[in-house]
Amino acid sequence: MKKIGVADTTFARVDMARYAVKALNEQGTGFRIVRRTVPGIKDLAVACRQLFRDEHADLCLALGMPGKADLDRTSAEVASLGLMMTGVLEGKPIVECFVYETEALSAVELETLARRRAEGHALNAYTMLFRPHELARHAGEGLRQGFADAGPVRRTH
Amino acid sequence: MKKIGVADTTFARVDMARYAVKALNEQGTGFRIVRRTVPGIKDLAVACRQLFRDEHADLCLALGMPGKADLDRTSAEVASLGLMMTGVLEGKPIVECFVYETEALSAVELETLARRRAEGHALNAYTMLFRPHELARHAGEGLRQGFADAGPVRRTH
Amino acid sequence: MKKIGVADTTFARVDMARYAVKALNEQGTGFRIVRRTVPGIKDLAVACRQLFRDEHADLCLALGMPGKADLDRTSAEVASLGLMMTGVLEGKPIVECFVYETEALSAVELETLARRRAEGHALNAYTMLFRPHELARHAGEGLRQGFADAGPVRRTH
Amino acid sequence: MKKIGVADTTFARVDMARYAVKALNEQGTGFRIVRRTVPGIKDLAVACRQLFRDEHADLCLALGMPGKADLDRTSAEVASLGLMMTGVLEGKPIVECFVYETEALSAVELETLARRRAEGHALNAYTMLFRPHELARHAGEGLRQGFADAGPVRRTH
Amino acid sequence: MKKIGVADTTFARVDMARYAVKALNEQGTGFRIVRRTVPGIKDLAVACRQLFRDEHADLCLALGMPGKADLDRTSAEVASLGLMMTGVLEGKPIVECFVYETEALSAVELETLARRRAEGHALNAYTMLFRPHELARHAGEGLRQGFADAGPVRRTH
Repeated sequence: MKKIGVADTTFARVDMARYAVKALNEQGTGFRIVRRTVPGIKDLAVACRQLFRDEHADLCLALGMPGKADLDRTSAEVASLGLMMTGVLEGKPIVECFVYETEALSAVELETLARRRAEGHALNAYTMLFRPHELARHAGEGLRQGFADAGPVRRTH
Repeated sequence: MKKIGVADTTFARVDMARYAVKALNEQGTGFRIVRRTVPGIKDLAVACRQLFRDEHADLCLALGMPGKADLDRTSAEVASLGLMMTGVLEGKPIVECFVYETEALSAVELETLARRRAEGHALNAYTMLFRPHELARHAGEGLRQGFADAGPVRRTH
Repeated sequence: MKKIGVADTTFARVDMARYAVKALNEQGTGFRIVRRTVPGIKDLAVACRQLFRDEHADLCLALGMPGKADLDRTSAEVASLGLMMTGVLEGKPIVECFVYETEALSAVELETLARRRAEGHALNAYTMLFRPHELARHAGEGLRQGFADAGPVRRTH
Repeated sequence: MKKIGVADTTFARVDMARYAVKALNEQGTGFRIVRRTVPGIKDLAVACRQLFRDEHADLCLALGMPGKADLDRTSAEVASLGLMMTGVLEGKPIVECFVYETEALSAVELETLARRRAEGHALNAYTMLFRPHELARHAGEGLRQGFADAGPVRRTH
Repeated sequence: MKKIGVADTTFARVDMARYAVKALNEQGTGFRIVRRTVPGIKDLAVACRQLFRDEHADLCLALGMPGKADLDRTSAEVASLGLMMTGVLEGKPIVECFVYETEALSAVELETLARRRAEGHALNAYTMLFRPHELARHAGEGLRQGFADAGPVRRTH
């Protein structure tokens, strides 16, 4: 039985973890989800560290939504580096799923983007854990999460 | 009995730790506070490291107020990365509470913002230690500390 | 028998790993390739960590293609720092091969650049493992991967 | 008997360590100073690491003066992150005292600023080691080193 | 017998290591040089790590030449952080000698700058290893490598 850690925030304006958990459960069985909600994106790294250490998660999904302010960009970078440090030290994958408020033009768009990206990264997390070789079949195909796939450079490849 | 480390600076122009400690004490009992004041924000990471190592803190609250100069932005980023490293290495939460002088337009506004943010993060720290599952109930609700909550994207959610 | 880890992404719009593997196999024998495809460039560091730890790779080749958005630049920097941390902690080389979408003006150019850079870095990886002293003979010669060599400052050197 | 490590550079245009050592000695006794001069600010982190490891310093004071060029800003950030890593790994304070050449308008001003900041940080270092609780009495008072104190937001506090 | 590691790249457009090795040998005896050439500046950190680990170097000299593109600046920063991590983790000095192509206006100037800076840093490396106390005599004197010394702020000091 695999264990998937899900870390998310009260700062985000969409309950992305809910969509991620739903998407994970639709993929199949054979795993348990442990969720930990923290205040902001800078708290996600330690949350993941604890999910690995205390809950023995095999992979973590870290969901966050940096705000519109210039300072939020810097926070996101620090948060991201923290997740990176944690993943490297643990030697286990952390799927970072950040949606920047500035990526969407309206509330509706933001909600949709956040939902779709959470679903997309949840699917990736599942695939990484249970069907890692499947990813290789899509190498270099310009896959995206949240927006439409960019696709490979040469579609007739 | 839990232990909460509070690290703050003489550089800050508001005694944010005083507000944080007051807010913590209003939340309840069952914890002891250990405070360590250092000169500037770049000293906070080691202060937290020592609060974890020497004082066996379960969580640290790191309060600071980066100045107006361009160089202060860089200092804040370095300080923030130091806190991140410390939290990840210790595997224990550090609640970073920074108020940028540039976020407020007047002295009064700065004082108010600093007080409210210190209180907000103190409350978060308390919740993380004593009622972690309560945070999950507010996941994705656009909660803020210091300013008004941004709220969830869809209020009719 | 040496082992070369190849980590690549489904985000990239060109299957750079395919070119890299082909180029490696054309260099000679005496090594085995272990490939791991992950969703994006930020997942490469942990993939390399696992290739070192679980597969005992002697060197990793990390291939990625940051997108056009401003945020992709930041992601690439974080991804790059993660690869750096991993290489330093493992004490083993990670040859980073990133192609920025913004480096090419057209799809054809991007495909060509990605192919040539993957081949160039694959050749470097092979040389680092099997003929390290050969690199010293080309020290300071302005060699490039993907574009034409810049060459040494003084060609009559 | 405590030990204070002092690391400084030949790159700086003012002998800041001389002022710092003088200021430390004026504070009191009960400590020994071990000084290590390195070429530039990027060498300070390892110098401190060695002062902690080989000389058993209890605290290090790292003095440097980044130049005027744009590249010097980046160097200072890397140097600063190195000091941060070192402090966090050692769990011991490194008081960073950097004076940017761009902070002063003339040679005289630069000399004065460098002297005063070195003295200010030396005093902080002494206080951190010998009278740590005294810092708490000045929490949030807007103290500065080199320039006049910014002071607390509300002077009638 | 001390050991000096010299790490350089095939990306650089000047064979800086050759100048550095020559300058080291002109300084005196009592050391052996171990050289390792890698493709680019991002490979220098692991090369140094291996020079410390496998070759027992006492100090490393890391020579590189970031190109003109904007992306090269970011690469240099990542490379520099990698060298910093390595030096801090090993507790041994890495003398970073980077020459940015943008620092020179012509090929001749670049060659001269690269040669002089390599020689200057090689001399520093030698002094750090064999006459560390000599550096203290030049503390705060505004010494530079490659360009003319900036000199101390007050020449009549």
